[in-house]
Formats: sequence, structure tokens, C-alpha cells
Amino acid sequence: VPLRLGDIAEITGGVLAGDPSIFITGVAKIEEARPGEITFLANHKYAKHLGETRASALIVPDDMPGNFDKPVIRSKNPYLAFMKAVVVFHPPKPLIEKGIHSTAVIGENTELGTELSIGAYAVIGRRCRIGHRTIVMPGVILGDGAMVGDDCVLHANVCLREGVVLGNRVILHNGTVVGSDGFGFALDGGKYHKIPQVGTVVIEDDVEIGSNTSIDRATLGETRIKRGTKMDNLIQIAHNCSVGEDTVIAAQVGIAGSTVIGNNCRIGGQAGFAGHIKVGDNTTVGGGSGVLRPVSGNTMVSGFPARPHRDELHVQAAMHKLPELLKELKQLKERIQKLEQELKKEC
Amino acid sequence: VPLRLGDIAEITGGVLAGDPSIFITGVAKIEEARPGEITFLANHKYAKHLGETRASALIVPDDMPGNFDKPVIRSKNPYLAFMKAVVVFHPPKPLIEKGIHSTAVIGENTELGTELSIGAYAVIGRRCRIGHRTIVMPGVILGDGAMVGDDCVLHANVCLREGVVLGNRVILHNGTVVGSDGFGFALDGGKYHKIPQVGTVVIEDDVEIGSNTSIDRATLGETRIKRGTKMDNLIQIAHNCSVGEDTVIAAQVGIAGSTVIGNNCRIGGQAGFAGHIKVGDNTTVGGGSGVLRPVSGNTMVSGFPARPHRDELHVQAAMHKLPELLKELKQLKERIQKLEQELKKEC
Amino acid sequence: VPLRLGDIAEITGGVLAGDPSIFITGVAKIEEARPGEITFLANHKYAKHLGETRASALIVPDDMPGNFDKPVIRSKNPYLAFMKAVVVFHPPKPLIEKGIHSTAVIGENTELGTELSIGAYAVIGRRCRIGHRTIVMPGVILGDGAMVGDDCVLHANVCLREGVVLGNRVILHNGTVVGSDGFGFALDGGKYHKIPQVGTVVIEDDVEIGSNTSIDRATLGETRIKRGTKMDNLIQIAHNCSVGEDTVIAAQVGIAGSTVIGNNCRIGGQAGFAGHIKVGDNTTVGGGSGVLRPVSGNTMVSGFPARPHRDELHVQAAMHKLPELLKELKQLKERIQKLEQELKKEC
Repeated sequence: VPLRLGDIAEITGGVLAGDPSIFITGVAKIEEARPGEITFLANHKYAKHLGETRASALIVPDDMPGNFDKPVIRSKNPYLAFMKAVVVFHPPKPLIEKGIHSTAVIGENTELGTELSIGAYAVIGRRCRIGHRTIVMPGVILGDGAMVGDDCVLHANVCLREGVVLGNRVILHNGTVVGSDGFGFALDGGKYHKIPQVGTVVIEDDVEIGSNTSIDRATLGETRIKRGTKMDNLIQIAHNCSVGEDTVIAAQVGIAGSTVIGNNCRIGGQAGFAGHIKVGDNTTVGGGSGVLRPVSGNTMVSGFPARPHRDELHVQAAMHKLPELLKELKQLKERIQKLEQELKKEC
Repeated sequence: VPLRLGDIAEITGGVLAGDPSIFITGVAKIEEARPGEITFLANHKYAKHLGETRASALIVPDDMPGNFDKPVIRSKNPYLAFMKAVVVFHPPKPLIEKGIHSTAVIGENTELGTELSIGAYAVIGRRCRIGHRTIVMPGVILGDGAMVGDDCVLHANVCLREGVVLGNRVILHNGTVVGSDGFGFALDGGKYHKIPQVGTVVIEDDVEIGSNTSIDRATLGETRIKRGTKMDNLIQIAHNCSVGEDTVIAAQVGIAGSTVIGNNCRIGGQAGFAGHIKVGDNTTVGGGSGVLRPVSGNTMVSGFPARPHRDELHVQAAMHKLPELLKELKQLKERIQKLEQELKKEC
Repeated sequence: VPLRLGDIAEITGGVLAGDPSIFITGVAKIEEARPGEITFLANHKYAKHLGETRASALIVPDDMPGNFDKPVIRSKNPYLAFMKAVVVFHPPKPLIEKGIHSTAVIGENTELGTELSIGAYAVIGRRCRIGHRTIVMPGVILGDGAMVGDDCVLHANVCLREGVVLGNRVILHNGTVVGSDGFGFALDGGKYHKIPQVGTVVIEDDVEIGSNTSIDRATLGETRIKRGTKMDNLIQIAHNCSVGEDTVIAAQVGIAGSTVIGNNCRIGGQAGFAGHIKVGDNTTVGGGSGVLRPVSGNTMVSGFPARPHRDELHVQAAMHKLPELLKELKQLKERIQKLEQELKKEC
């Protein structure tokens, strides 16, 4: 398993400064690395850790100044380079054995690809399709007509509801639900009547979704998560939402019905979005924000209700001074009163 | 499948203005509708979409003014009328086949109703009862003594814990847990000791609960969700809470222990409630609000901590002006100082 | 089942004032207790309920003043004493039968302890270990190499991913996921590339975790929940976090990657923590707070962003006065202007 540093430089696509013949035994985070291991520095701001690390080699940004007392691999994207090193030292193991477990229940008229794995007690509905090399872990349940592309991984206890569609290379972590009914009720005579949710969910290629996340099917039409988007755990995507391409959404975010999120957005944890709004491409949303109005894109918003991040910082700073300000105001009032009295006396 | 517009008017209970003989091929949202389809306008404020829609007919509020260049069905409750049209074009399909799947495990002394469906790998405990026509999807697990009424739907991977009680026509979406232990611990000597949670959960008739929601059992007594209430995904209901009738709770709301929510409330997404408080009937709670004190009812509250919505809007507006206000205060201080100096000079 | 009050006093370790020979039939909350039952008063502030309760006996704090018209058991820790009474009246019932259900799938080279219970359709991976007397409920799924200690309870539909480690007496409620992949992606050329999450999760002895909670595995190294910590439902613990000993975390809290929470902390519901920060021992965090910076410990913080609780209360109070303050400021401006004009006239 140990690899020569020169080989690691080549695998990661970086430029080595140091002895290529030393052996590296593993990868580790900068503060946990032991002698023999390689670590990385993604960002200049963590440079303070450099002096403390016990790692034997480092992957650093190629524009990082300074001399190092250890061999370094300079890389344009140290995090990506490190990822490649991680893969070399931790080659992926198959989660379960290839093939269809004898206990898996497969419904009528369901089409299965080649080289796939279906685990124990998985239940696949009727008229489904599962692509080549896809891994369906134990306890996964697909409703009738659900479609899954090639090279997907559905972790244990994932539920795909009837008719939902997944592209290729989609990863869904445990307990995530795709296609539960949207939250739609018509109020009549003081009671709520269920609006049948007859739409579906489409998840495009290369999407990864964390555990215990809920993505509701559309009332009519579709809820859609577009290519390359990555979503974390415990997220709520309501009916008829659309999330753009290459967008990242952190844990516990909630997006209300029919809201459209653009491409290349970055959304912080626990943020919430009102329904029926549009958030443009390249928007960054701070954690915990409440986005109640449309956002044009190419901007960062934060706060509750969310506003331009710079404004929010000013408001936050001012709020901090608020108790002091109240005192000052009281003093000013007294000084004005005194002035008024004195001026009266004068007259 | 195509239906005459006149028949749709009759089914939806509306009044048709236009040719009853034209054929309608489906239902769609106003912005997605294609020629041949019918759509609806729930609310005057979406009237701007009217000119753009390609739908061949519309369901509109009966008090909506104006002439339409298309046939319209006027309805007192267009959303409800539309729901009826949706049902006609999308008649519900059975989720799974009737009957008890050969792999379902049914515990001793459990009573099963007639015409029910129990899916593959469902596990029903001992001394349970499941009512007539209820659908228990694959992977659903009922603890000992759990009771489910008639015409319920328990979607895949729902868990009902021991002894919980569901009424009739209850729908629980995937991954939802009813009856997990309440969060109760007694601190003694710096360590937490589990308080046994020996109470239960009662969910009354016509309640629908979304996916991945958690409803804890009571420490003693019961946690109760009352008739007709609708709850969305990823909601937390703590031990000994009570939620009233015909209340709607949006996704990711959290209600702490022993809190009582009234009837006909509307609670926005991600709102949080402190424990041991009472929220009166007909309360509206804004999304993301933190309700820390009792609310008397017949009101709207918002913000963190929640206050009357009108006050919160004033506070929000004022906060926005806060940085400006700090500048003004500084200027006033200078003007006062100048006045004081001048007045001194005069004397 | 009825017990003499004298015996209850002995079991709970309290001092009885009253007739030891009366029979007690059950335990109940103070507002729900019926004649014949015993209840408790944990805290002086609930003393107002004393006059109303129909209970036949009370457990009260030993320093509680006043005469009672009913027998009382005085206790240093009434909540703990009450817990002991609850256990006596509600002795725990086995959740499922002892032994390994015939449908459980056990992978190769997995070691099982004695006297354990494994429920229907549980799937245990290869090379796992499950300790003595542990209860694995139906539908639980363990990935390859997962290790579970003695006397644990894994409720239905819990997922333990490959290689995670649980200590002894760990309780995980339904639908909780331990070891899903951390949310780590390297951005390159506008696309996100998955960083393999090759670390693990370690959960130490006596930890209890609620339902539908997600705990991600570390990128490298481990995510760790330390001894005696209690976590509620729907919580997000990101990769590489560490939560200290004897800490309590309420529902829907989210902790971002690599953050370290100390021992003996109390974290309110829906609070959020930024990544890569340290929160010291004995920290109390108010519900709904956003902890964006390190906290030194032995303190209470609240608000968004979180600050010392006392400061936050001042800010909240000031915010409430903000609309009023804006009006006052306007009046002061007018008075100053008037003063300035008059002073000008004088000159």
C-alpha cells in the first residue's frame, strides 16, 4: 500500500518539490496526520497549521509563497488533488455483492440492467426500470413505474415513490424519500381536502442527495433537481420546485412549493425559501437565512428576511449597538431639554 | 379520456360561460397548460398570467371581473373545483395489490380488517389491529399493540411504535415515525438518566402527515394530533404535545414538549415553538418564527421571538433603517454640542 | 399493581410525610393525575398547580416550603424520584422476542453476542459484531463491518453504515442514520467532484439518539458522539464533528462539519452551528440560535448570530422599541432644528 511521493505527485497532477523516492503510507487531515502520511492545505488561511503538522508531505496551492521544511506537491486545486490521493489509498469497496439477492421482490414488467446489485429485502414495484451497474441496497423500496438510470447508488431504506425518474450516477443516502405527496389541500367549509398529487419528480444525472431528505412530487408536472447538484441531509424540497445545475444545498434547508433555484448556487444550512419565488444563478445564501423574495442572481444574500449580505452585516453591527444607542438617545433628549429651558430663560 | 367542458363544469360544481361541447384533454398549472387543457386561477393576484396561458379553458373565482377570450367555469372555490377536475383526469391507481403479501410478518393476536393491502416485508407486531381497506406499504413496521383504523395509507418504511393509535383515513408518508420515545432525562450527579416514556400517540381521523416526520410518544398520557390536521415533511412533534383540529403545519416545524396548538391554525415552515405553551385557535404563525410565549389565538404572529405580525413588520422596517439611524444620531449629537457651545458663548 | 405509599417512598429514596399505608395505583403528570395516583413537582415555579391536582400523593423538592393537604415524599431530585416510580408502575416490556428471527439476514464472518434479539427482515452485513443482549428491531440495516456493543437498542428502520462503531447501552430511535457520507465535494471547472468519505462514526457508551437523525461519517478519521450524550429527533451532525460527554441536543439542531461541542452542554431546538468552530464545556445555546463563532464555555449564548444571552436579551428588548425610537429621533431632530433657528434669531 505505501506509495512513493513521486507517484502521488503524478496521480494528483501536481508539481513535486522534494524527494520523489520517500514512501507515503496514507492520507490525513492536517491536524491529525502522522509521520509517513500526506496532507493538504486547501487555503492560505489555514497556513498557521503548517508548522504543527506531523505529516511527511503536503499538497499546497501552487501560488502559495514560502519555503517548506517538507516535500510539497504544488497543485492548482489542492482539494481535488488530495481527493485523488484519498482514492488511491482508499480504493472503493463494493457495498454489497453483485447480483440480485434471493429475497428481493421484483414486480411484474420491471426491466433490470446488467451487472447490478439488489440487496436483501429490497422491493421493486411493477413496470420499473433499473439501469446497468446500479446498486440498490437492502430495504430500498421503489413504487410502481419508478425509473433509475445507470451507475446509481440507492442506500439502505431509500424510498422512491411511484413514477419518479432518476438519471445516471445519482447517489441517494439512507432514508431519503423521493416523490412523497406535495403538501396541497383546498380549504372548503373549514376543512382541508387533499389535492391529488399526480405529478412526479425528476432527478438528473450526477446528483447526490444526503440522508433523511424529502423531495415531494409535483401536484401536476414535475419537481426537478438538475444535473450535478449536491444536496445534504434532512432537506425539504416541496412540490413543483426546480433546483438548477451544479448547485450545493447544505443540511436542513427548506424550499417551499414552486420555488425555482438557479444554477451554481450555494445555499447554507437551515436556510428557508418562501414558495413561488425565483432565485437566480450564482446566488449564495447564508446559513439560516429566510429568502422571502426573488433574488436576481450573482449575489450573496443573508439574514431573515434575507437582504444583500453587505447590508445584513451593517444591520447586524448596528443591532449590536442598539442598547447603547437607546442610552445615548435618552442623554440627547435630556441635553435638548436643558437647551430648550436655557434658551427660554434667555428670552 | 377527453371530456366535454360541459361535463367538467358539472363535476366541479361551477357555472360555465362558453361552449360546453369542446373537448378537454387534461389539467395543468396556468403557466404549463397546453392547448386542449384546462387550468385554474385561485386568486385575483395571479390574473397577470391570464393573458399568457395556452390553456383552452379556465376555472376562475366567481367574483372575478372581466371578459375572457376563452371559456371559463366560474366557481366559489376554484382550487377545490380544480381538484375535482384533477381527480377526473387522474383517477387514483392502487399503490399495491389487494391482499396480504406472502412475506408480510403478522404477530400473534393481531386483528386484520377486510379488503386491506399489506405489502412485502411489512412487519406487524403482536396484538395490533388494522382496519378495513387500509393499505400498509412494503417495509412498514408496527410495534406491538399499534392500532390503525379504516381506509388509512401507511407509505413504505413508516414506523408505528408500540401501542400508538391511528384513526380512520389517516395518511402517513414514507419514513415517518409515530411514537418514538420523548426526549426526557433526569439529571443526577452530572449524568442524564432516561425517563421511561410510557405514554402513547393518538392520531385522529383524516390526518395526513408528510415524509420523515417524527412524532414522539408521551412520557405519560398521550401526544395527540386531532381530526383533519395536515402536517408536512420533516416536522418534530415532541412528547405530550397536542395539535388541534383542521390545523396545517408546513415542513420542518418543531414543537417542543407539552405545547398545545389550537384548531384551525396555519403554521409556516421552519417555525419553532417552546415547550409548555398554549397557542389558541385560528393562529397564523409566519415561517421561521420562534414562538416562545403563549399566543391567545385569532391572530398572526411572526419573528424571533414571535410577536404580533404587524409589530414585527414595523420592527423589520426599522431594522432596515438602523445603519442610517446610527449616522443620523451622530449628526444630531454634533448639532447639540454646537448648540450647547453657542449657548455658553451667549451667556 | 397498587403499591403502598411507604414502599414508593423507599423505592424513590425520598422522605415520606403522611400515611405510608395508603395504596397508590399509578403515576401521572400533575394536571392529569386522578385520585389514587402519585405525581411530582420538579420545580417551585409549578407550585400553582398544587392546589388543583387530584393526585393522592406528591413527590416534591426537599427544600419546598409549606404544608400540604396530601401525603408528600420529599426528594432531593423529584424528577429522578418520579422516574423510579414510573419504572415500578410501568416495568419495561420486551419490544420483540429474544432470539434471531428466521428472516434476518446475517452476513459472513459476523459475530453475535448472547441473549440478543434480531427482528424480522433485519439485514446485518459481513464482518459485523453485535454485543450481548442487544436488540435489533425489524428492518434495521447494518453495513459491512459495523460494530454494536452490549445492551443496545436499534429501533426499526435504523441504518448503520459500513464500519461505524457503537459502544454499550446505545439507543437509536427509528429511521436514524449513522454513517451516511459527509458532504464533501471539490469544485473543479464549475463541477463538483465527490471527495470519498472514508472515515467513520464512533458513538460511545450510554448515548441515546432520537428518530430520523443523520450523523455523517468523517471524510478521514471519525465523527464522534461521546459518552452519555442525548440527542433528539431530526438532528444533523456533519462529517468530522465531535460532541462531548453528557451533552443534550434538542430536535432539529444542525452542526456543520468539523465543529467540536464540549461536555455538559445544553443545546436548544433548531439551533445551528457553523463549521470548524469549538464550543467549550458547559455551554448553553438558546433554541433557534446561530452559533457562527467559537464559544469559550461556561456561558449561555443565544440569537442569530449568537452572542452572550444577556446581551441578546438587551438587543431583543431594544429592537422591540425600535419603531418608537425612530419616531422619537424624528421629534428630536425637529426640536434641534427649532433650537438652531431660535439661537440664530437671538444672535
